[in-house]
Parts: sequence; C-alpha cells; structure tokens
Amino acid sequence: MLDTAARIFYERGYANASVQDVAEALGILKGSLYHYIDTKEDLLFRLLDETQDEVHGILEEIDALEHMDPLVKLRLYVRRQIEFNMDNLVRVSVYYHELDHLSPAPRGELLARRRMHEQFVTALVREAQERGLVDPRLDAEGASRCIFATIIWTYRWYSPERDDRAHIAETCAAFAVNGLAAGRLDHLPSGR
Amino acid sequence: MLDTAARIFYERGYANASVQDVAEALGILKGSLYHYIDTKEDLLFRLLDETQDEVHGILEEIDALEHMDPLVKLRLYVRRQIEFNMDNLVRVSVYYHELDHLSPAPRGELLARRRMHEQFVTALVREAQERGLVDPRLDAEGASRCIFATIIWTYRWYSPERDDRAHIAETCAAFAVNGLAAGRLDHLPSGR
Repeated sequence: MLDTAARIFYERGYANASVQDVAEALGILKGSLYHYIDTKEDLLFRLLDETQDEVHGILEEIDALEHMDPLVKLRLYVRRQIEFNMDNLVRVSVYYHELDHLSPAPRGELLARRRMHEQFVTALVREAQERGLVDPRLDAEGASRCIFATIIWTYRWYSPERDDRAHIAETCAAFAVNGLAAGRLDHLPSGR
Repeated sequence: MLDTAARIFYERGYANASVQDVAEALGILKGSLYHYIDTKEDLLFRLLDETQDEVHGILEEIDALEHMDPLVKLRLYVRRQIEFNMDNLVRVSVYYHELDHLSPAPRGELLARRRMHEQFVTALVREAQERGLVDPRLDAEGASRCIFATIIWTYRWYSPERDDRAHIAETCAAFAVNGLAAGRLDHLPSGR
C-alpha cells in the first residue's frame, strides 16, 4: 500500500493526488483504503515514517559497531545511507519534496528523528577530532551538513541505467570522509 | 519583476501561482505584465535563465584566473557558488523546485548550460590529478557530483538568522576540496 502511495505521490505530486487515485492504483475501493488510513495526510505520514524507520535502522546498526575507528564508522554509515537512497529513489524523492505538506506536529516528529542522525554524524566527527584523526579546528556541525548534502543529493542525480551502484556508494563515501581530512591541504593558500 | 515572480512562485509554488498573482504583487494590471512576457512559463524561464546567467558569471570569472593551482580555483569556485546560493535563497529554491515545470526545449537549454559547470569542475579535478595533487584513481565525474551536492544543498539548510555566511562558505569549500584528497586516508580500511 505504501509503495503504491509513494508512486502516486511521486508521479502526480502529493497536492494533486487523491486517496481515490491511490485506491484505484491498488485496485480497491476508496472506502476499503479508509479502513487503514484516516486521511490523505495520514497516508503521507505513514509513508515518510516507515521510510525514516528504515533509515534509522542504518544508524542503529552502525552505532552498535564497537571498537571501530570513528572515520570507518562514518564511511560505512555514508555508504549504507547512499545505497538506501539509490534503492528507494521514489520514496526518498517523496520524503524531500512532500515533508513540508505535513502539519506541524507530525512533521516535527519526523524532524526530531532526523536530528538524531545529524547528532550521530556530528558526534563521530568530534570523536575523530579528539583522537587526532581530524583537524580540531574544523566546524563539526558544518562538516556534518556537508556530509548529509553528499548523501541526500544522490537521489537527484543517480541514474540506475547509467551509474554503477557500488561504485557510486564507494566514491561518495570516500569523498565524504576524506572531506574531513582538513588541514592536510593547509599548504595551499585558502583563496582570497 | 523577476524578484517578485520568484517570491510568488516560492510562496505558492509555480503550479498554483498565476500571472495575475504576480501582477497584483507588482501593483500593475495583468495586461501590463503581458507587455513583457508571453506566458507564465515564459516568466519562469526568464527567471531561471537570469539566475543561471549570474551563476555562469562565477564560472567565467574563475576560469579566467591564470597560473593558479586547480584546487585553489576549485575552492574559490565552490565558495563563490555557495555565497551566491546563500544570497539568493528564494531564486535558487525556485530553480531546483520548478525547473521540471518547463517544457523540454527551454529546460534543455538551461540543462545544457548547467552541464558546462559539471564539465568545468570535472576538468579541474582531472587537472589536479594530472599534476599529482589528487589521487588519479578517483572518479573525477563522481567526485564532481559530490562537490555539486555540497554546493547545492546549502539552499535547503542555510539559515541567515542562525548561520554565519562567511564561515559556512569557507567550511563547505574546504570540505569539498579536501574531499578530493583521496588516497590520503588509505591507511584506513575501506569498510566491508
């Protein structure tokens, strides 16, 4: 049901799509669909919530790895997240395009869980700084935003027909982590 | 006129906004606005085209810098692009959200000019590889996509009230360029 809703919202846009459209695509009556959901917004929330649950599983899995270098954990995290995006292009597109259509309360709930990811990555960067693996002058929060940019933007440019999934995941994960190796290019002028 | 159109498209979404809305916000009659544009799509195209003209100015300016290290050029380019995004949040949002509403011909025209940016950055990465500044095994095109992710995604998270513009531009530019220093963390296992 949620996969079909994702496809309909993706193709028509949430604002233009109706519960009727989703029911038709499922081959059931609208009344039957209302056994499972209360409103169209409820359908959107469940879709985004389930997507975020799966993404949260990645965080928990990486967080559970003990005795591992923080940069290696970070690299694994970025790679897994990018693979998830590449494997769920439709859902991820709907997530980033339609999140703002939710009312403040459900949107706030999703954003609070997203902030846990930002805190997780920022904490890994700080740990790497404490261990001397990353320049301590680097703004850990700013770098974390750049890491999420690398992760998230894949949904806009990755093409399953053109690109090799494993190669992209590895290239971007290496880019994101090596992007933390600040200070290693300090011999270069910093620009004007 | 284009600033006002950008604001209206940003607030209401291009699909929901009308030429009448833009005319009202300008305090003129719809008929007067039609002296300057043919259709609503024409208005959107002119807005995106002008935005892209300004962005193209950055490419030309950096391209004209001679006798300069490719990584320094790249760092300047990233910084200038991010500054442009931060200074033009409304226009840049409309660009990324509404480009797909253009018909194939005008959209193709804009995308062709955008590809020049991708080629410019990819060429700088390759030049850096030829000079031994960047690991030659790095996929220059993939890295270039990650650099654009770092540039573009700023429009989604930068907050003028919370963030310091110069600090963000510098942090992200350093992140993007140091992200090219692949191979420098080769002592780390590459993950599973």
